[in-house]
Amino acid sequence: MSQFDRRSFLKAGAVVSVATATSALSTVATATEEGVAATSKAATGVTKTLARYLVAARYEDLPANVRKEGTRTLLNWVGVAVGGSHHETVDRAVAALKPFSGPRQAGLLGRTERFDIMNAAFINGVSSHIFDFDDTHLKTIIHPAGPVVSAILALSEYRPISGKDFLNALVLGVETECRIGNAVYPNHYDVGWHITGTAGVFGAAAAAGKILGLSEQQMVWALGLAASQPVGLRESFGSMNKSFNPGRAASNGLFAAILASKDYTSSEGMIEAKRGWANAISTKQDYREITEGLGQRYEAALNTYKPFACGIVIHPAIDAAIQLRNENHLTADQIESINLKVHPLVIELTGKKTPQIGLEGKFSVYHSVAVAIIEGAAGERQYSDRAVRDSNVIALRDRVVATIDPAIKPEQVDMTITLKDGRKLQKYIQHAIGSLEVPMSDKQLEAKFLSLADGVIPAAQARKLLETCWGVERLGSAAAIAKAGVKKF
Amino acid sequence: MSQFDRRSFLKAGAVVSVATATSALSTVATATEEGVAATSKAATGVTKTLARYLVAARYEDLPANVRKEGTRTLLNWVGVAVGGSHHETVDRAVAALKPFSGPRQAGLLGRTERFDIMNAAFINGVSSHIFDFDDTHLKTIIHPAGPVVSAILALSEYRPISGKDFLNALVLGVETECRIGNAVYPNHYDVGWHITGTAGVFGAAAAAGKILGLSEQQMVWALGLAASQPVGLRESFGSMNKSFNPGRAASNGLFAAILASKDYTSSEGMIEAKRGWANAISTKQDYREITEGLGQRYEAALNTYKPFACGIVIHPAIDAAIQLRNENHLTADQIESINLKVHPLVIELTGKKTPQIGLEGKFSVYHSVAVAIIEGAAGERQYSDRAVRDSNVIALRDRVVATIDPAIKPEQVDMTITLKDGRKLQKYIQHAIGSLEVPMSDKQLEAKFLSLADGVIPAAQARKLLETCWGVERLGSAAAIAKAGVKKF
Repeated sequence: MSQFDRRSFLKAGAVVSVATATSALSTVATATEEGVAATSKAATGVTKTLARYLVAARYEDLPANVRKEGTRTLLNWVGVAVGGSHHETVDRAVAALKPFSGPRQAGLLGRTERFDIMNAAFINGVSSHIFDFDDTHLKTIIHPAGPVVSAILALSEYRPISGKDFLNALVLGVETECRIGNAVYPNHYDVGWHITGTAGVFGAAAAAGKILGLSEQQMVWALGLAASQPVGLRESFGSMNKSFNPGRAASNGLFAAILASKDYTSSEGMIEAKRGWANAISTKQDYREITEGLGQRYEAALNTYKPFACGIVIHPAIDAAIQLRNENHLTADQIESINLKVHPLVIELTGKKTPQIGLEGKFSVYHSVAVAIIEGAAGERQYSDRAVRDSNVIALRDRVVATIDPAIKPEQVDMTITLKDGRKLQKYIQHAIGSLEVPMSDKQLEAKFLSLADGVIPAAQARKLLETCWGVERLGSAAAIAKAGVKKF
Repeated sequence: MSQFDRRSFLKAGAVVSVATATSALSTVATATEEGVAATSKAATGVTKTLARYLVAARYEDLPANVRKEGTRTLLNWVGVAVGGSHHETVDRAVAALKPFSGPRQAGLLGRTERFDIMNAAFINGVSSHIFDFDDTHLKTIIHPAGPVVSAILALSEYRPISGKDFLNALVLGVETECRIGNAVYPNHYDVGWHITGTAGVFGAAAAAGKILGLSEQQMVWALGLAASQPVGLRESFGSMNKSFNPGRAASNGLFAAILASKDYTSSEGMIEAKRGWANAISTKQDYREITEGLGQRYEAALNTYKPFACGIVIHPAIDAAIQLRNENHLTADQIESINLKVHPLVIELTGKKTPQIGLEGKFSVYHSVAVAIIEGAAGERQYSDRAVRDSNVIALRDRVVATIDPAIKPEQVDMTITLKDGRKLQKYIQHAIGSLEVPMSDKQLEAKFLSLADGVIPAAQARKLLETCWGVERLGSAAAIAKAGVKKF
């Protein structure tokens, strides 16, 4: 064949209702563009099974621990979104999109502007990932709340919904994205996809679709339209494009659900079909992760929250430092030296001895330990330019020594502080705070929340917002969350 | 390690300006989420080279044949978009998105509604792919105009631009998506991606970015944000999701360019980096297709247009039928029988002898030949339910015989019509009309255009719209195209 190859020649020429016209095609289905995806190598029913579950699942079905974790997921996410809301990344997104936004349907957390729900979902999603301080599903490194809560927070201001139904949608969205992530992780992530954006779009579509009251058929279509819009590549990490990804996953998922609600169709098995999402996007597909134990085991119960605004490789050391500080009422001037026995990765990843700017501080175990001793925290402000240039922090940082110990695992640390009076204080961390084994307490989540909100919204508003999140199940209208989280003037 | 695996443990904790903090990371870059993508296995400079070309390329640089083909691309696309604009697929999209649209910035071809530019780009893109009757870059089976022209048609109503600059942006967008498509085709398509949506988003971003006057750095970012938003899977073919894909590629590319215009950043090498687009989305990457001969050879000059609203496997037979009809002023009642010698694929793909509905007609070489003899065309109306149920068409259809001939190639046909008076008329087709070898003439494009517009907009308006498209290079404002193509009341 000449210029056009076999594929183009075989290409059929219309939107074809395949079911009505496939008999003559079936033997060459794999060679036609319109071709019915051959199912011989693919699973069947995955998308439908998931959709059926999503449509049927009720708030009343959620176990208490799942409801609680969903509430903590909400609270943590609202805090980080408020905290990030005035970063220049968000300012640029707002400036770019303002001329094109629709009706002022939904608020931006921590800000005064209002946008249509899809643009609001996008921007809140960006805000919430700015500090990379949001929640983590550790099995997949998905940040579950960004795509899901961004979408339904905006939608809740447009479509009235109770707090109970909001929480149910949140849990179902998180469940959807984490299960789909499990099915393709790690291969999918290893090749370069940012799994928060690629799996997240399903979570956003599922949660928004639940709020919109989609039928099972519509939910299948919403998941199919979501499958058509994966977001994000790891190459973009280090740029504003990283925060873009959960935001765009949120707006894409919402877009999918809204179209499906008006019977805009997709195929029936977009997740699992031969030329569907999982086969196109990953070399591993374990569909049992999606369909088994729905309503019985909850990935949404496995969410975790970062206590410290840096990579978790340093978290054991920071945890040890803060515990010793608080238990002994330590001040920097008492300390002669701080010795850490660490896993080699701590040095490899965070061995920067003299960070010059705040961001570099996140790659310095020395700075992290010193500032944690002095300020009792390791949040965003402990990684500001101010913090890494603080003379007291620098003086203490220079007295921190980290030594590789083959017996120490990455999630562990062994810290010994030698005081000027000769005493030695020792702390061994088996699992750092924020891990599944030692989750952040509600109080610690509150402290993180209030610290992030500090300087963005008034303290009284932050406190009220916190209480609104804790009380989500009692809200008559979930729109109260967004209303409590926007800046008033 | 316990619940969290190595990846999650290594995950760094913030939006990190990697350039400022990489020295300690470089040895383990491949293991970190924020990790600098190792460049050892990846190409470099592809995205930048493309961006530099796009920013520098001027209308005056375009060879005459490329300008002409760009104009034909525009004309054909406007026709199919008008023609598809009242399909229920479009009605549902319009109904779904209306409550969320921003200012009435841009029109919908063939319709009265106005939407913000991003929603308008989406909907026009959907309309233009409804009949799968749009243009085709045969080397990749990309439908180039959908993503690109949808984006810039809308943008041209918001950002004043001359017709010359509009055409230049159109060509550059088509060039961008087809070259990127070449780099990953066929592996990328074979695995299941709908290449019109995955490569198309780059075309939309490039063309919109050109109109927005992006700097080289901003164009790099626009391409990066585009890389983060591929659209579409082949599993969705046969549903409304197929038309969704060029539409969403258009709005995603526009979204990328608009954000980049306000300095929303991405990485520098999103197309080619180790964890960038091409490596994530394809097992084949030939970057020379993207960077070599820019401004010298033009993929945009290789665009083709379908004369018939069905798969091209039947096109030679239809071409022969219409030629014999016109040359001999044939009517159905003169015909005793029609004998075709065809390639086996014609029978395999289009062997339906008694189609019952219009869509099935597209899979019947018998119907196609019969209706072409009787009506002298094979456009959308020849594949309506009315057409396949027409008693004259059915009577002639039953006298069509197709025989497999091993000597006949797929792009060929050998037709013999036996008349009732005993004469035999014969036509051998080497390359059907619409191929690169026998492109549609301007007159044929006009006839297709007017046929598609018939019944959607008044005939006088259709004629004026046609002339506006032909005269794009003389337009003071390219907004005239959209203005001429919307329904007035």
